[in-house]
Parts: sequence; C-alpha cells; structure tokens
Amino acid sequence: MWYVVTNGRGWDEDEATQRGGLRFGGGLVVLSCAGSIPQKCLSGKLEAVYVDASRKMSENGVVPRAKVLTIDTMNPTVKNVEYAVRGPIVARAVELERELSEGMKKPFAEVIKANIGDAHAMGQQPITFFRQVLALCSYPELLNDSTFPEDAKSRAYRILQSCGGNSMGSYSASQGIDSVRQDVAHYIERRDGGVPCDPDNIYLTTGASDGIMTMLKLLVCGEGATRTGVMISIPQYPLYSAALAELGAVQINYYLNEEKCWSLDISELQRALDEARHYCSPRALCIINPGNPTGQVQSRQCIEDVIRFAAKERLFLMADEVYQDNVYAEGCQFHSFKKVLFEMGPEYSNTVELASFHSTSKCYMGECGFRGGYMEVMNMDDEVKAQLTKLLSVRLCPPVPGQALMDLVVNPPQPGEPSYDNFIKERTATLSALAEKAKLTEQVLNTVQGISCNPVQGAMYSFPHITIPEKAIKEAMEQGQQPDMFYCMKMLEETGICLVPGSGFGQKEGTYHFRMTILPPIDKLQILLIKVKEFHQKFTQQYS
Amino acid sequence: MWYVVTNGRGWDEDEATQRGGLRFGGGLVVLSCAGSIPQKCLSGKLEAVYVDASRKMSENGVVPRAKVLTIDTMNPTVKNVEYAVRGPIVARAVELERELSEGMKKPFAEVIKANIGDAHAMGQQPITFFRQVLALCSYPELLNDSTFPEDAKSRAYRILQSCGGNSMGSYSASQGIDSVRQDVAHYIERRDGGVPCDPDNIYLTTGASDGIMTMLKLLVCGEGATRTGVMISIPQYPLYSAALAELGAVQINYYLNEEKCWSLDISELQRALDEARHYCSPRALCIINPGNPTGQVQSRQCIEDVIRFAAKERLFLMADEVYQDNVYAEGCQFHSFKKVLFEMGPEYSNTVELASFHSTSKCYMGECGFRGGYMEVMNMDDEVKAQLTKLLSVRLCPPVPGQALMDLVVNPPQPGEPSYDNFIKERTATLSALAEKAKLTEQVLNTVQGISCNPVQGAMYSFPHITIPEKAIKEAMEQGQQPDMFYCMKMLEETGICLVPGSGFGQKEGTYHFRMTILPPIDKLQILLIKVKEFHQKFTQQYS
Repeated sequence: MWYVVTNGRGWDEDEATQRGGLRFGGGLVVLSCAGSIPQKCLSGKLEAVYVDASRKMSENGVVPRAKVLTIDTMNPTVKNVEYAVRGPIVARAVELERELSEGMKKPFAEVIKANIGDAHAMGQQPITFFRQVLALCSYPELLNDSTFPEDAKSRAYRILQSCGGNSMGSYSASQGIDSVRQDVAHYIERRDGGVPCDPDNIYLTTGASDGIMTMLKLLVCGEGATRTGVMISIPQYPLYSAALAELGAVQINYYLNEEKCWSLDISELQRALDEARHYCSPRALCIINPGNPTGQVQSRQCIEDVIRFAAKERLFLMADEVYQDNVYAEGCQFHSFKKVLFEMGPEYSNTVELASFHSTSKCYMGECGFRGGYMEVMNMDDEVKAQLTKLLSVRLCPPVPGQALMDLVVNPPQPGEPSYDNFIKERTATLSALAEKAKLTEQVLNTVQGISCNPVQGAMYSFPHITIPEKAIKEAMEQGQQPDMFYCMKMLEETGICLVPGSGFGQKEGTYHFRMTILPPIDKLQILLIKVKEFHQKFTQQYS
Repeated sequence: MWYVVTNGRGWDEDEATQRGGLRFGGGLVVLSCAGSIPQKCLSGKLEAVYVDASRKMSENGVVPRAKVLTIDTMNPTVKNVEYAVRGPIVARAVELERELSEGMKKPFAEVIKANIGDAHAMGQQPITFFRQVLALCSYPELLNDSTFPEDAKSRAYRILQSCGGNSMGSYSASQGIDSVRQDVAHYIERRDGGVPCDPDNIYLTTGASDGIMTMLKLLVCGEGATRTGVMISIPQYPLYSAALAELGAVQINYYLNEEKCWSLDISELQRALDEARHYCSPRALCIINPGNPTGQVQSRQCIEDVIRFAAKERLFLMADEVYQDNVYAEGCQFHSFKKVLFEMGPEYSNTVELASFHSTSKCYMGECGFRGGYMEVMNMDDEVKAQLTKLLSVRLCPPVPGQALMDLVVNPPQPGEPSYDNFIKERTATLSALAEKAKLTEQVLNTVQGISCNPVQGAMYSFPHITIPEKAIKEAMEQGQQPDMFYCMKMLEETGICLVPGSGFGQKEGTYHFRMTILPPIDKLQILLIKVKEFHQKFTQQYS
C-alpha cells in the first residue's frame, strides 16, 4: 500500500483529488494507489513524492520527503543478488555473540562459525615468513633490524624495489606489479611441470572473487534469447550466482553427482547445455576444483573431458582453483586445467579460452583479509585483453599488500635459505591438520543416522546430505523458510553452531544439505561434530 | 569483412556453398559474408566458427578456431568505458621508461609521471606512525620490540583485537571492522563540530573508487527515457564517466565555470537537469570538493545552494571529499556536505540523501596502494541499506590492511602520546610542501603566453587552459587525435613529462587543457614547469 503525495505540479490538486487523493493541507494531496505508483510520478516530470503507508505522517500535514532511493526504485539486478555464506544465519550468529557478551543466558557458551572458510579466525596461525616480509615492506626501517632473517629481507627489498618510490603506498600497474606477475608465471611453470606461462597473461586481483567477477563481466552481452548464459555447478559457491544475478546473465545449472562423490558427468553438462540453448546463448563454463562446497577433487580424465566438451561447444572455460594445495584424500591429486590443456596438444592448447583463478585466502595460507589473488588467461583475444586492462585501470590497482603476499606464496623460502625449514614445518603442520580434520569430519558425520557425508577429498568443507522429517519440512514451509534453513537456524539457536544451509549453494530438488568448514581446531571440531550429531538426533526425534 | 566457416552441421556444405561459400578442404566451407554474421551462426545451433578476414588461414585449410570472446562479442558497456588517467599516454610513458632503461637515446634522462595523484611514487614519505602500526599488525611478534613507541603498540593491539583470531588475515565484517567504523564516526563528529555520526552509516571501502562505484550501482535502473541519469561536473574525474558507462547509466554534464575559478553555478545545474529530463530520469548529483582535476574549493554558500537544489529536484547527493585536507589557498576552507546539511536544519538534514567518500590515498597520507577508504550514508532508506550490505558481502570484505590504515588516519596520535610531535611534524611538512607547490605551479604556468591557470586552491592538480594553434589542431584532427592529446603526446616524446589531456576529463567544446599533478619534489617540479614552458613556446612557434 502506497501513498503518492503531490504538491500540485504536474498533476494539479484537483486532478489528484479526483483520482482518490485526500487534501492534506499545505497544498499537498495524498493519493492512495495501493501497490503501484503511476508512471507519471516516476518519470521525474512531476515533483511528487511517495511514501510507504507504514510511515507516519506528522499531524500538521507535513509529509516526510520521500526517498530518492528506495527498495522499489533501486537497481533491480542488485535485489536479485543472494550470498548465503554471509546471509541471515550469519547475521543471527553475530547477534547471538552480542547477546552472549551482554550476559544473556544461552544453551551454549560460544558461537562457533563454521560457515565460512576463514582460517585465521578459526585460530590457524599465519606463516611467519610471510608476515615478516609484510612487516618489512610496511616499515622498511626494519631492514636494519638484525633479528629478521636475511631471506625475508631480500624478498622485502625486491618487492619494494618494484614499487613506485619504493613504497607499498604507491599505486601499482593496474594489471599488478611486474615482478610479482613474473614470479606468478614461474610458479605456474613449476607447478605444471614446465608448461610455459607468459607474465602478460597474469592479472593480479583483489582476491579471486574480483577476478571471477571481472571475467564474467567481460563475457556478458545480448538480450532475451541471445543473453549470455554461464554454466555453473550445483551445488556452487554462491559468488557465481550472485555475480550472474548482478550482471543480469543467465545461470545454467549442471548438477554434480552426489552418489559418485560429487563427480562431474559430461552427459549432465550436455543435458544442461542443450536445454539452455533454447532460452539463452551459453558462452562460459565454470568449474571449481577442488570443489566448494562439495570438497571433491577432479580426476585428470574428467578435466580432459571437460576441456573437450568446452572446445566442442565453444565455451569459455573458467577454472576456480583456489584450493589447489588443499588435497587430502589418498589417490587424489590436483591437476590444473592449464596443464591438462597443454598436454592435450595444440589443437586444444592453442584454441580453448581459459581463465584460471588463485588466491592468498585458502590453501595453507588462509590470508583472507589481505585480498590477494591472481588470474591467468589463456588464448584470450588480444583486443579483449586490452579491454580488460582498461577496465581494471578504472579501479587503479589491487591492494599492494595483497600483491606482496601473493608474491610470497608463489615464491616462498627455498632450500638452503634461512627460513626454509620453518616455512616447511608450518605449512606441513597446517595441511596435515586439515587432512586429519577432513577425515574426522567425514567419519563422525557418517555415524549419524540421517546424515550421509561424501569423503572430503579436498578444499575446506563438508557438504553432507541430511534427512529432514516431513513434519519439519511442513513447519519450515509454513514459516516461509527452506527446510534446511529452518534446520540450521534451529541448530544455531540450540548449539551456537553456525552452518550454511545447502539451499544457499543449490541442491537437487527435495534434497537437503549443509556446508560446514573443517577449519576449527581439532579439539573444538570434535566437540562441534558431537553437538551436530546430538542436535540431528534430537531434531529427528522431535519432528518424527 | 568476415568469413564464416562451417563444418557442415546446421548448414550442410551444399547450402553453404550455394550461399557463396568456398569449399576449403577437410569438410570445411568458408563463406564470405562481408560484415555481418548470419544469425544462424551466432545462435549456437550451428557448430560454426568465424574468423576475421585479416587472419590468415593455414595452407592445409585448417582454420584457427575462432574465439568465444572477441571485441565484437564482449560486453558492450565495458567497451564504452574510458579512463584517461591511465590511458594511452601512460602506456607510452611506460614504454619510454623501458626504452630509456635499455639504453635508447631520448631527448630527456627520465620520464616524470605527473599524470596521477600517486604521492609516494613521487617521493613523498609515508607517515612513520602509520607504518609502524601496520608493521606491528602484520607481524605481532614486534609488539615485544622495545624500539616501537607505546602508542603505536596500543593502536596495533586494538586493531588486532578487532580482527577474527587477532589476525589481519581474517575476513572482517563486509561493512568493515566495527571498531574502525566507530573511529571513523568519531572523526566525522570532531571534523564537523559535533554533528552526530552513526557508525552504522559508515561502510569501509577498497579506496574511494569502490564506494563511488557501489553507490552508483545501487542508483541505476530503468530503460530508455526512464534510465537513471547522474549529474557530474565537467571537467570530471573520469572514474565517474567510466562507472556510468559500465553501468549503462546516462551521464549528465554540468560545466564548472573556468572564468570564476572553476566555481559551480546553480543556474548551470538547472540548465543541465532541465535538458536531461527530456531523455532520462536524473536521480543523483555528484560533486568533487576540493575539485579534481580543477583544484577549486567550494564555498560554504555554494554547498548550501547545491543541497537546496538537490532537495528541490529530488536528487541523491554524492560528495567526493577525498581531498578534504588538501586546502592551500588563503580564505579557502573545507566544508563537508554533511556538516552544511546539518546546519541547514531538519527540513534538509532529515531528508536529503547523501553519500560522502573519503580515502587513505590522498591528503597528507598518500597511501594509494593500501586501497583504504570509507563512505558515510545519510538518510538512506533502511531497506536499501540492507541491500547495500548484502551486495558488499559478495566480495567478502575490503582489504584489512587498508581498513587498519583508515583507522589510523581517523585516529592519529593525540597530544601527550609519544608519537604526536613527530606525526604533526611529518603531516605539516607534507601539507606545507604541497601548498608551496600549488602556488609555484600556478605562478610559473601563468608566465607562459598561451597558458592560463586558475589558482590551485586545493587537491593535487592544476588544470590550466592551453591555447593550441589552428595548425596543430588541424594536424591532430588529421591523425584522428584530440588536439590536447596530440599536444601532450608531443610533450611526452620531447620532454619525458607525462600529463593527461583535458579531453580525458571533459572540457567546454573548443577549449583545451591538461591536468598536471603538483606532487613532484619542489626542485623537480621547478624543472618540470620550466620544461613545460619551453615546450609550449616551441610548440606554439612550430605550429604558428
């Protein structure tokens, strides 16, 4: 229900009154128009304001000036954006934390945020070497401090030499610092067994999200049935759906096979693509490997099949490989799309367009706050590359401390350097602990009747299937909630554990899941898993 | 001229041949279709590739697979983006630097980049206290180092306490760290003489550019004649035109009055708005104060008039105030839009929607590389604020080191604290030097016949008017270049000085300018100004 208020310009008072408006003093006419605003009022030709009926008018008839920017007049694509990882459940978790700190009684002593891959927040320690170099770069006076190891100093010196005025406070080139891009290229060559990498194809980014968003932005065009469609896995990391919503692109869902440990079937890609061709113009295929939220690690064969599919169907490939060091399961190994593409020979390596993404936020580093990342593009059209560089120049450059950190990730201490042993010790400790926690999570969850969890082969999450009783589903629906949101909210209120419902990532109709990170310290994770188990049993009992 | 290549699916070879295609071996038919691609080929139903005629086919008849993403198939709004501050002239400057470093002979020994407000790159030193705190936050082991002052340690401790797991490597809240937003609110209250500020209205950003882009994104909607229009000053900072192009919004130009020291006339706002109402729906008015590229500082009266205009015309106000400490001219003073809005009484302060922007990149800090900033919103609709927070959550959080730096800017050393004296000394030195260089720039440029420069009242740039001889204009046009681009390119090639042509910011038809930063160290600036003078005289002579 809306009121339109006009001061008499455009519509005169009489016309507005005739249309059911009420004279309200001060030359104002208040017009009720139940739901829709006359186009005339929105066109800007009429000096008219409209207010939500729920807002009180003051007694003297002066109506508060209505907002220019309201939920009804804002960018509609922004309204379509959803991002479950920081959605309502997290807002409630923050509220609960505040209530606890204010002394309110709860059935738990602390809120455990297992909703987001935020390693340091869960107690993971940063790599000493990385932080030493960042301190040296921040305050170069420390280069004279004898307590810092020489390799940290030489890295810092090299980074500062690449900065304007030798300061991290200077803008870098929009594509990123030259020497960092060179180091990234060398890293990729080493990682991929010598496959060549051109630093000109490297773009440093503000976390991987920024790179993914930018690539999608380049790809989107057309209207109606020629509008760009982008294939994403279901379940997906909701950055993808959010970005596509914001860009007004068409999201094409392909479903991962939960029965086969979240594997990717080419026949399912084909089905999704063939259907989508009827209503949009599919142009890109996004893959997350290792998987988020599903934790699977793709086989080399599967990657080859995907590349072949992309070539055949003329799709631009986007490979989200931010968890490339997070592989735990025996027999699993990370294969980069770039490497497989090159091994498939020039028919593919000279033609298939690929952008791959990496980040400082995951793996053993977990440095989310620095917002570092890079993207490598292959076989990208030169004119498009020029457009990309131009687009990036508008936001000037990615944060330089994040670029410095990315440099350290791709160029860590080498054997023989003073920091090498400690670096390896710290990295191994973090990755071993993650592997142990991945195993533990799968094991404990699979002891619960009504929960079934695929092996966490990689990444940082489990995404178990949960059975929700019919009665609970009905109650959730009555409250206008997704059943797994209802389940997760209840768990949060009763146990303090903050998970993300599967509906935030997408799942097969009628199935329910949650995403839980494996990041809490092992003793805390054990308690958390037992609490999840107890909650699930209680919940099932309550609603059966 | 295009060729369409089909392997026989969709169209069979005969059909393609009938349509003028040439059989080309390997089952391929090459079809010339001079300019336009048949819709059938673009629809994706046909496995067809098309190549630009300029690209050679190999002799065995195998045609390179055409790209999915080309200049013709990419997002058209991205193509419309322009950003002169890092445009072709800067690319050439970088090339010249490389040529110099490779020993190539040039008529100059170094390239001086006076194109961008990048203070540290021009030799400005960072504030010691800020960098000490950042080093402490990066490597908290240093909290035990007795050489760091206590106030730096306590600031670092407080920042780390506000980070998850006490690490800058954790994600912060998407809106920014709570304690930093509180400090920003206190800073604004102090700056504005006690006008209240709610931390809930503060959003930390990745530099000011990110905040401006985000606000514009919220504001854009509608199609055709109802498409959102945004008023920007001409000359403008090209972030605005670039953002509007990318969003597909309508840019509404209002011209600053060069004759009156780049002042803003309300009658010109009214003219621009009235004209724009015929073809779009104007919703926002952007102001840059102190001005970029024009260096003027708005009077309190002018700001009041602008607010009154925005209220009357129902425009959302965006105040870009990143140069708020950069005011040099006698009699000039920075007035924030927020403060003036509040002084105008509740009729305005409770209704006019305003977003104002600040940054760590300018003022006396010049910390561009950290990408820190904040935005304050006032009178923003609550539902829109919720949408804004949701939108920000997708990119997770602004870089935490930039947030920490923003905190230090708004909460610097206080009287009595150990770092206070040195902080004041450093800040004063930087601002005094800038004031001196502002004066020097104006004075020297005004000694040149054919150059006329308004006082640099604030910010970091001069934007002098230059007279370009008819003959040079003609030659530029023949080369398809803007005359001032032609002028600046010539200056770069002959002197190594990199400026930005006025056409990159917009200017009155038939007038020409360049933007030059006042950032080089004073001795270098003196040389630079003399070189500009000599170049202009020579150029004028050459073309007269």
